[in-house]
Amino acid sequence: MTDRPRHWLPLLADLRAGNGALLAEDALAGTITAILLIPQALAYALLAGLPPQVGLYASVVPVIVYAWLGTSRTLAVGPVAVAAVMVSAALIPFAGGDPQRYLAGALILSASSGVILLLMGALRLGWLTHFISHPVLSGFTTGAAIFIVATQLSSLSGIPVPREAGFIAIFLEIGQQASRLNPATTAFGLISLALLVLAREPLKRLLVARGVRPERAAVLSRMAPLFVVAAATLVSAALDAHQRHGVAVVGTIPQGLPGLSLAFLHAPGWLALLPSAALIALIGYVESIGVAKALAFRRGEKIDPDQELIALGATNVAAACAGAMPVAGGFARSMVNFDAGARTQLAAIVTALWVGLAAFLFTGLLASLPKSVLAAIIVVAVWQLVDLRALRHTWAYDKGDAAAQALTIAGVLMLGIEHGLLAGAALSLLLFLYRTSRPHIAVVGRVGESEHYRNVLRHPVRTWRGLLLVRIDENLYFANAPRVESELHRLIVEHQPLNHVALIMSGVAYVDSSGLDVLDTLERGLSARGIHLHLAEVKGPVMDRLAHTGLIQRLGKARIHLSAHEAVCAIRGSAEPG
Amino acid sequence: MTDRPRHWLPLLADLRAGNGALLAEDALAGTITAILLIPQALAYALLAGLPPQVGLYASVVPVIVYAWLGTSRTLAVGPVAVAAVMVSAALIPFAGGDPQRYLAGALILSASSGVILLLMGALRLGWLTHFISHPVLSGFTTGAAIFIVATQLSSLSGIPVPREAGFIAIFLEIGQQASRLNPATTAFGLISLALLVLAREPLKRLLVARGVRPERAAVLSRMAPLFVVAAATLVSAALDAHQRHGVAVVGTIPQGLPGLSLAFLHAPGWLALLPSAALIALIGYVESIGVAKALAFRRGEKIDPDQELIALGATNVAAACAGAMPVAGGFARSMVNFDAGARTQLAAIVTALWVGLAAFLFTGLLASLPKSVLAAIIVVAVWQLVDLRALRHTWAYDKGDAAAQALTIAGVLMLGIEHGLLAGAALSLLLFLYRTSRPHIAVVGRVGESEHYRNVLRHPVRTWRGLLLVRIDENLYFANAPRVESELHRLIVEHQPLNHVALIMSGVAYVDSSGLDVLDTLERGLSARGIHLHLAEVKGPVMDRLAHTGLIQRLGKARIHLSAHEAVCAIRGSAEPG
Repeated sequence: MTDRPRHWLPLLADLRAGNGALLAEDALAGTITAILLIPQALAYALLAGLPPQVGLYASVVPVIVYAWLGTSRTLAVGPVAVAAVMVSAALIPFAGGDPQRYLAGALILSASSGVILLLMGALRLGWLTHFISHPVLSGFTTGAAIFIVATQLSSLSGIPVPREAGFIAIFLEIGQQASRLNPATTAFGLISLALLVLAREPLKRLLVARGVRPERAAVLSRMAPLFVVAAATLVSAALDAHQRHGVAVVGTIPQGLPGLSLAFLHAPGWLALLPSAALIALIGYVESIGVAKALAFRRGEKIDPDQELIALGATNVAAACAGAMPVAGGFARSMVNFDAGARTQLAAIVTALWVGLAAFLFTGLLASLPKSVLAAIIVVAVWQLVDLRALRHTWAYDKGDAAAQALTIAGVLMLGIEHGLLAGAALSLLLFLYRTSRPHIAVVGRVGESEHYRNVLRHPVRTWRGLLLVRIDENLYFANAPRVESELHRLIVEHQPLNHVALIMSGVAYVDSSGLDVLDTLERGLSARGIHLHLAEVKGPVMDRLAHTGLIQRLGKARIHLSAHEAVCAIRGSAEPG
Repeated sequence: MTDRPRHWLPLLADLRAGNGALLAEDALAGTITAILLIPQALAYALLAGLPPQVGLYASVVPVIVYAWLGTSRTLAVGPVAVAAVMVSAALIPFAGGDPQRYLAGALILSASSGVILLLMGALRLGWLTHFISHPVLSGFTTGAAIFIVATQLSSLSGIPVPREAGFIAIFLEIGQQASRLNPATTAFGLISLALLVLAREPLKRLLVARGVRPERAAVLSRMAPLFVVAAATLVSAALDAHQRHGVAVVGTIPQGLPGLSLAFLHAPGWLALLPSAALIALIGYVESIGVAKALAFRRGEKIDPDQELIALGATNVAAACAGAMPVAGGFARSMVNFDAGARTQLAAIVTALWVGLAAFLFTGLLASLPKSVLAAIIVVAVWQLVDLRALRHTWAYDKGDAAAQALTIAGVLMLGIEHGLLAGAALSLLLFLYRTSRPHIAVVGRVGESEHYRNVLRHPVRTWRGLLLVRIDENLYFANAPRVESELHRLIVEHQPLNHVALIMSGVAYVDSSGLDVLDTLERGLSARGIHLHLAEVKGPVMDRLAHTGLIQRLGKARIHLSAHEAVCAIRGSAEPG
């Protein structure tokens, strides 16, 4: 992060460097990504509880803004499932059923989360995002994906479920209202689901077996959602499924893109939506930077995490101006972009142009598209995010981390998206604080005739009456200071009578004010009882800070030693302790 | 803290061990402490907004309970100024001017804070209290003391100020209502203040100069508050100051002690007061354990922090049953007890018996005591807690800690007691998280022909083309994992072309799941580009955990090395790299 951004407009630097020559590759990759993006954009807008066109809007202007500002060459930005469900969780209680307030709230979420990211970038606060640990992020993604699948059961079956229903309530509602299942809706949903599943691994294997190159097979497999949408729309229109079979369809979508607007600035609810916006910003950034880093590293490119805050922040502010929901870098979509050969963000601009064109040309055709088909697309897309094996791996490696991961999954499902995330993050922070509050302290003695001093409990070592040698194995700061103090008191009281206590500070890289207080108080207490405190192996940076304190002035040079061995020699009053 | 308590009833162990022979010393110390405690108990009850007798109740039964359960032999428990002002801050908005609700709220605070401490003791959660850093605690005490002094200006002058007024508002009110100053009240207040100040250092010096032994002079000086109270009461009664000069007096205090009662269990407001109770418990415990540790260490005795949680918890529950406000160990009072020669908690039992006796014999006499005299006692007692030099010391040593300390002082004065404390603690936690999120990573090379490998930026060392040696100087966990990942990516991209990357893990004592993910992803990314990852100097406990992971299985024995030098030798394919 010490890196400066390569350029304020990394894409411009790429183009000047002649990477524009790769335009053909970028154009192909961008086109393939657009084919994946268009149905997902419609679907994720519905998932967020917004009109489908809002997903298209989120895939044009914001994508172009990111293309110019982002340091990732391959990250595909746009609506993502997890952010969409977070938007829905925030807006359902906020809007209270008012669609105007709901849409205005979505723009506020885009703008606020963008401003939060911009501020974090400007104030260099990116480190705050580190406190979403990997297990919590994985648990959150899995929990959110499972919850999303549950929310789609209503669209898939036509059984009405209130949008505010929690995870358990969804199943209860569907169980109670099972008789209201709409067979035509369900048929569209299940057939789409089956086709989409078959289009993944089975189709790829089939094509490869028939001699198609694996990369091309993968690309064809990725196009399945668009074919399913097209086919379903045709069938639905031909059968007049909406009128004759009561199938819920997308309905009329306004043609084209809205003009940029700042009208959202006057909408009420900025303060009320701020906590949700912060969480959306955090998760969106952490997910995006993770994908961006992984893809960049595979090609030996660099990502600047601070510039990414600025880029994603500006992108979300742009989303608000474009009338769109919050956006982030999508994992699956970026992989497709990368695998299809994108070399620069020109690919993303090509994607955006296709989506923009679609908004002008095809919106009229989509009116008959059954919503259950979009639900099937959501289910297949998010099902890949469910990773329960990760929980088993974490459990095998670290029980505390696994507890945080499990709590996050359970919390997202039982307490809701936001509370589940906060509960998991809080537990993971608490576990971290607990671990750091337990420093390792060892009484040491001399190994044979060497100059090595080791733990008396693990090695046969020599010790001396009246002299206690204690090695502190961790930084000394407020989180462990009270415990270090208690432990030192205990050791000193247990080893009485004593004339000298030497603290070996080889493992201490940092001493904060609380740690200094412990050392200072210890010296005073020992001094009052006629015991001399010595320090040995104090690291340079630690000594630089301690140098001007009363403690070091009281100790003087005679009681500060370069090594444990020198301390012992000086205390025992001979060149070589006997 | 690994120590078991010496005994469930440490005092009993002391008595069995024959320390009861010190009864004479304890009786004297307990008597001197009682002389200091009685006026303070009345004053701190008024500070808490409670009837003065509640301070006496807090000094009998709770003191006896702590005497049996506490591991400190000299801690003097009772009402303390900081807890009293916290009680007031919590109850003013809670009671809304209803005295019954106010008193019931005080008992709920005692009981809840006691239960919280008991739970923390039972669940071994004492480490949670570590997160009040020394600078925040010092800032909180200083801020609270300044605020307390301000709150006493009204009692000292007789100018009415609403109890809910904040720090600034107090001065505004006093300025606006200056004409309502009561001369007699002010005279009682200022004369008491002058006498109390003179009774400290000046009196001590005078007595010592006249040949009195310093210890005895200190004891006489400590008795001043009781003499001031007695003298002021006599003068006030003789002049009929209340009726004839409008001096606010203590008024009738019920004689004796109330019977123990559990009636507070049925009072409403437990949930509303829980956060305040938690803060009172935290501060009360942290202050008490600090004093207890310091005093115990001066005599080579041990304190058990877990047993102290139980003891102080039970003491506060007992306070609730005894109709009293929350209690804690007082710094000044414990010092007096210690200096007066207390050897066991029998001294505290003697103190409690004196207070109990006073509640039966003297309460009738106190009716004429002007409140401004008690205000003077509060001001003199808490003024010693104001320590602005500590802020300068902290600033010289650590700017971040000083910022937390200054924010706590300013926060207590501007935002109020509770919010100030929380703001300071939050900043200190944030600074800690910020520091720990910035690990040190160094590219290293070989020093001369030695087996030492040092930072290439600081030492003239040898490096090899195609081989990058990186030393990680801190534990790898979620708080720094993203940064370690970015730094490693940057170093690797900058040192291309590479065949081998070796991570030297000598400074890594702990790798959590997020850290493991970073290593695992790094290995996959390098592998995809034909670069070999090596690990060297992995510590035993770290390797124990890593042993069963996919990462170590992929690396195999050939890419895990005991030392940096062995890694270089193995990679360069010769016993000695040329």
